[in-house]
Amino acid sequence: MAEHEYGRLSALGNQQWKRPRPTGAAAVKLSGEVVANPYAWPYDGRLIPSRTALLVLDMQTDFCGKSGYVDRMGYDVFSTARAIEPTRRLLEMVRSIPEFTVIYTREGHRPDLADLAPNKRWRSRLIGAEIGTEGPAGRILVRGEPGWQIVPQLTPLPGETIVDKPGKGSFYGTDLDLILRSRGITHLILTGMTTDVGVQSTMREANDRGYECLILEDCTGATDIDNHVAALNMVTMQGGVFGAVTTSDQLIRVLLRLSLESARLTEGELTI
Amino acid sequence: MAEHEYGRLSALGNQQWKRPRPTGAAAVKLSGEVVANPYAWPYDGRLIPSRTALLVLDMQTDFCGKSGYVDRMGYDVFSTARAIEPTRRLLEMVRSIPEFTVIYTREGHRPDLADLAPNKRWRSRLIGAEIGTEGPAGRILVRGEPGWQIVPQLTPLPGETIVDKPGKGSFYGTDLDLILRSRGITHLILTGMTTDVGVQSTMREANDRGYECLILEDCTGATDIDNHVAALNMVTMQGGVFGAVTTSDQLIRVLLRLSLESARLTEGELTI
Amino acid sequence: MAEHEYGRLSALGNQQWKRPRPTGAAAVKLSGEVVANPYAWPYDGRLIPSRTALLVLDMQTDFCGKSGYVDRMGYDVFSTARAIEPTRRLLEMVRSIPEFTVIYTREGHRPDLADLAPNKRWRSRLIGAEIGTEGPAGRILVRGEPGWQIVPQLTPLPGETIVDKPGKGSFYGTDLDLILRSRGITHLILTGMTTDVGVQSTMREANDRGYECLILEDCTGATDIDNHVAALNMVTMQGGVFGAVTTSDQLIRVLLRLSLESARLTEGELTI
Amino acid sequence: MAEHEYGRLSALGNQQWKRPRPTGAAAVKLSGEVVANPYAWPYDGRLIPSRTALLVLDMQTDFCGKSGYVDRMGYDVFSTARAIEPTRRLLEMVRSIPEFTVIYTREGHRPDLADLAPNKRWRSRLIGAEIGTEGPAGRILVRGEPGWQIVPQLTPLPGETIVDKPGKGSFYGTDLDLILRSRGITHLILTGMTTDVGVQSTMREANDRGYECLILEDCTGATDIDNHVAALNMVTMQGGVFGAVTTSDQLIRVLLRLSLESARLTEGELTI
Repeated sequence: MAEHEYGRLSALGNQQWKRPRPTGAAAVKLSGEVVANPYAWPYDGRLIPSRTALLVLDMQTDFCGKSGYVDRMGYDVFSTARAIEPTRRLLEMVRSIPEFTVIYTREGHRPDLADLAPNKRWRSRLIGAEIGTEGPAGRILVRGEPGWQIVPQLTPLPGETIVDKPGKGSFYGTDLDLILRSRGITHLILTGMTTDVGVQSTMREANDRGYECLILEDCTGATDIDNHVAALNMVTMQGGVFGAVTTSDQLIRVLLRLSLESARLTEGELTI
Repeated sequence: MAEHEYGRLSALGNQQWKRPRPTGAAAVKLSGEVVANPYAWPYDGRLIPSRTALLVLDMQTDFCGKSGYVDRMGYDVFSTARAIEPTRRLLEMVRSIPEFTVIYTREGHRPDLADLAPNKRWRSRLIGAEIGTEGPAGRILVRGEPGWQIVPQLTPLPGETIVDKPGKGSFYGTDLDLILRSRGITHLILTGMTTDVGVQSTMREANDRGYECLILEDCTGATDIDNHVAALNMVTMQGGVFGAVTTSDQLIRVLLRLSLESARLTEGELTI
Repeated sequence: MAEHEYGRLSALGNQQWKRPRPTGAAAVKLSGEVVANPYAWPYDGRLIPSRTALLVLDMQTDFCGKSGYVDRMGYDVFSTARAIEPTRRLLEMVRSIPEFTVIYTREGHRPDLADLAPNKRWRSRLIGAEIGTEGPAGRILVRGEPGWQIVPQLTPLPGETIVDKPGKGSFYGTDLDLILRSRGITHLILTGMTTDVGVQSTMREANDRGYECLILEDCTGATDIDNHVAALNMVTMQGGVFGAVTTSDQLIRVLLRLSLESARLTEGELTI
Repeated sequence: MAEHEYGRLSALGNQQWKRPRPTGAAAVKLSGEVVANPYAWPYDGRLIPSRTALLVLDMQTDFCGKSGYVDRMGYDVFSTARAIEPTRRLLEMVRSIPEFTVIYTREGHRPDLADLAPNKRWRSRLIGAEIGTEGPAGRILVRGEPGWQIVPQLTPLPGETIVDKPGKGSFYGTDLDLILRSRGITHLILTGMTTDVGVQSTMREANDRGYECLILEDCTGATDIDNHVAALNMVTMQGGVFGAVTTSDQLIRVLLRLSLESARLTEGELTI
């Protein structure tokens, strides 16, 4: 895919989506509300950092790096790697806000492949990238291998939680739900790999459990641009069937305000 | 959407899909194997009726009938209703095969809405079709109401299991997994509403749990044809990331053979 | 079992339990805190009705009525039926407090037994009470049958939620977790049948999910008194490994105060 | 607790349990069937190694070693440590049988305690053994710390699966179910710590999911002997409400036969 196609994409967040756009909803801009499609996010007023987690899903070399699983399958890594830089900028912002939770996930299997369903293994063999066999970035999709690592630009800080998962959805077979409950988190912002597979599965699981979700189109990517666009479009059906869609820029605008408020509060406390 | 667009669609099963098509895989036609994309289904040899369930998902008036939820939201019901007739034909076939399990699902909420997440309710209100309020087919998406019933063409027979579900995925908050385990079912054939929402969520959940899945493109439908096509295309990525795609015709060919074999066996038993 | 044995039991709530009793904890009596063992409940201050649900588990004829499943297996129904009257009194109290949620469960299987694991069926046959066969109270443990109904003394009011479940735990294969989340409920008070089976399984599942649990010893019962006592004792290990134990009297004392406060508030609002 | 009390216990497997003992069931001794209470295990004929997993639950220093969590709480470690030697012997036997799966679990929390529910933390503080604080065996119940390690006598071999879990049940928040499904395992043999907490919770979860379970009384242990006995007794209610109970000796008798058969088969193959 050519770079100009993503030029088209990066405008999507500000553009008219297909339908049905509730008139006015996205136009409302209360303090703490993110301009999004098909509604200003979150549905219940304003972004509250202590109740919100930023999910950085599967930003591993296997999915968006050179010589990883996706590369090995013959897909264009540029389509996924484009999400790295905006996600890095967003992380920087989020980390400056006290009480905001960051959670990473990594798709990968146990070295003994005990958690690998036989059909998942068979399919990976079919396309010449069998999970568990040696590839240019170590054993493909296996925990601890180079390809399974989160890309260096997004390396988690100490204290940031990483959830390892065997499937596409981040809730099945993991402690993610418990972590979110234990911190009282009810709102999720989704970024990562890939828009139509891991991110979409996670957003669907989260939404069915009642989490209020927002997906950032420029912080996600897919091996096929049509799938990327379609996955985002699906979210917006039925008034936001899985949540809402926006760009990192729109989110950062709101975070900046929160960050300033928080700084002011801290300053206030200090001077008193 | 015009009818000719679905003419285009109905050919999809026999057509080249985007990529990556494993050479030869779909061409292999062992007895009991279904021609599908991107691989002849199932991965582990042949369709075994006692280990397979046909899922008929959310074929309710609310999703594919006149005056239901989808209709009320302003979407074109033809896009979903097209799945009714091929599903009816398939059901007839499947019911003639001993040991084949049929499971229906219905999306809907308790009359007191206790199982309705606040954001799901809010969004439905936003688009003028608030769940729980009176619509032309009774209270919208509420159990027991006319709109929530399975369309008359597909009325379940006595003895066919119906799973009621509060979300889009059929595994969350239901006994579906237990039912499948208890019968030793490991393979699922998916039909129903809508391709990109309920069907796709269910297929993703099933696949993460290790079920081997097949989706029938002509027995599904969506409120937006691009989403329908995209949802099917997503399945075929990475060697069949969620399973395989085919048409009811391709499946019926194999079922006919199984049905004949089973008839022959029964006859054989009788003459002995 | 003789009635005097339960005389012994009814004193348990105010008595010394084995160990380890954290000194002072149970003695603290803030407004809204329930005297319990091994700690004054809840751990985080006071009972807040809008965040608390009273669970009435499996109070069905099959478990505590004449000619039900438990009776049929040859157990003494008095041991379970004793819970009916204190639960009835408690329900009356709870229903007078606005925002308090009541949730019933019923163990039972689909009429076609699709949700009945083969080993559960086999074991019930072994003891002469096969699930699904005709008994004196209809088909044993089957939904819709007389034996499966909640005993008449505790009939749910309209608007009170009932969760049907195929297993012993109330979270597996049900929408209970979704219902609790959707209402923002984080604290559970457990009553019902039987202390060592359904109630204990539910309490363990709830506790692992982070719910703060309280079990009422006089509103529960078991087919074996030693198991009843032991199940309650297990809860109190390790500082309250699954929560805390008390009696309905202790709880009602706190509810009375809340009820008065709530009445005073309403009155106050009216006079303003 | 004095050692002679466990003398009493070690006879339990061969002794009459309370009730209701189905006449004859435990007396049947087909090849491959384990003498157990209340029925010869498994319910469906004979032990098949490829479909069976031995679960070794939470045999960590924190639960059965010197200076661990249990010791720190003031409980008698002998009551739990007694399970080590029979489990070691059993493991030796099991490992000699091809296709038999061994799965360990470890209870413990992430170093940042993100997966620790607030009430679990509060309770541990209450009894002077706060999870996450420094104890004589490292940070209490934290992954990677000395106390969290499996005791040296039972160190897992390379290739044996270890499941880390945040709660008492081994199914919540883990990939255990996926691992069992992926290997086609339907039967579980439970050993480990503690009989009334982790082992009992896991057995209940497994049983509700349809797994056929057997618990070994001498390979389990609890901080309170009455709870140990009661937890085992609960299993045997209602014809084996959670499965069956036996001793490692009874199991080893059957495994020996299987081991010999397997050796004979291998020999046979070699000589052909």
